[in-house]
Amino acid sequence: MTTNREKVNSIQETPKGVVLLSGGLDSTTTLAIATAEGYDCYVMSFQYGQRNNLELRFAQNIAKSFEAKQHTIIDIDLRIFGGSALTADIEVPKDYSNTELSEGIPITYVPARNTIFLSYALAWSEVLIADAIFIGVNAIDYSGYPDCRPEYIQTYEKLANLATQTGVEGKTKVRICTPLIEKTKAEIIQIGTSLGVDYSLTLSCYDPDPEGRACGKCDSCHLRRKGFEDAGIPDPTLYR
Amino acid sequence: MTTNREKVNSIQETPKGVVLLSGGLDSTTTLAIATAEGYDCYVMSFQYGQRNNLELRFAQNIAKSFEAKQHTIIDIDLRIFGGSALTADIEVPKDYSNTELSEGIPITYVPARNTIFLSYALAWSEVLIADAIFIGVNAIDYSGYPDCRPEYIQTYEKLANLATQTGVEGKTKVRICTPLIEKTKAEIIQIGTSLGVDYSLTLSCYDPDPEGRACGKCDSCHLRRKGFEDAGIPDPTLYR
Repeated sequence: MTTNREKVNSIQETPKGVVLLSGGLDSTTTLAIATAEGYDCYVMSFQYGQRNNLELRFAQNIAKSFEAKQHTIIDIDLRIFGGSALTADIEVPKDYSNTELSEGIPITYVPARNTIFLSYALAWSEVLIADAIFIGVNAIDYSGYPDCRPEYIQTYEKLANLATQTGVEGKTKVRICTPLIEKTKAEIIQIGTSLGVDYSLTLSCYDPDPEGRACGKCDSCHLRRKGFEDAGIPDPTLYR
Repeated sequence: MTTNREKVNSIQETPKGVVLLSGGLDSTTTLAIATAEGYDCYVMSFQYGQRNNLELRFAQNIAKSFEAKQHTIIDIDLRIFGGSALTADIEVPKDYSNTELSEGIPITYVPARNTIFLSYALAWSEVLIADAIFIGVNAIDYSGYPDCRPEYIQTYEKLANLATQTGVEGKTKVRICTPLIEKTKAEIIQIGTSLGVDYSLTLSCYDPDPEGRACGKCDSCHLRRKGFEDAGIPDPTLYR
């Protein structure tokens, strides 16, 4: 029996990838890698009540600059779950002066966020008959987030292939691609720079001003600034 | 070190369960079981552009009748993914005359639906520090749905405990409870009836009339009617 995917593959050489894009440094580098690997990129971003909605404007410009096939913004409301500085009205911590991250799980953690995002990506990948889902998680710099760990991603990939129509056909698989998972921030910046990424188009700050200029003080700003230093590449970030 | 959950458990005996409720026969029976097992039930339903929005009205009445601690309706739009009779404007199949289900995956399958639903339930369970997520999937009558299979659920449970803050603490676990997974429709109806479920409050039909009366012709109606017959219990369903 010929599956739909086999029919499609026989007449179509270019692989399809669903790429999760926040507008930050990591996800933008991930999009650059997927593009460089020859994927037709279907970019997905999320509007989830976060304070830094600016990210989405950055994401739109980035998707455009990489000539993504499509850019879908999914509107979901995680605020009902409460409990995070990224969505609730509590202060983002900026009370330390070195580049060490605070211990444990950051208070900027949103419950089950990557699990929800990947689930939407999985639904889209099934409709598109996509070959891969790209997500820019990183197990080194963000080791405080449980849903950035390699065993989490491996288990998600297993789940993805059990969850869907594609999985039942048993012939083809969707892969969860995490090209940055074992990279340092400096390595990520070096890879992206070699692929021509313009990092001034990206926003990492948890607390930017209305023009999108970074605070320079939050965890994310510290990591990013140190990444450029370690990579020996000038930091194009606009700080306020 | 004492975890938050240990602190909570030490002062609180009643377990918490997040229960996914569609307003149909299976999920209502699942809520009855969770309630009978002594869980404080936090009920979650989804508004996802399906044609049978009536289900949500049924779900609200059911959650009330079981004195759920809370009932949250999450608004998500699966229509952007297309491709299903439950959300798109194509005809639900009613062209057969026996109770055998059509072969293969039903066209009423919504891409990654249970994966998305469970992900929201997982987020809520993390915030509530819940002990379990209840979902009324069934591997027998709905074997055409890939995301109703036991291996899918087992993998989701593994994922859930890797995905969250709770999982990282490594002390406690959220379980994915599927009390109906190996039951026939007749057994489900017998269990629910023994727990006092009023099935006239539930809606299974894919194509009800505006008053919520069932068509009697779709897959779901056939299964339900046969379930009551096999259980030897009068069918309280209102057919149009």
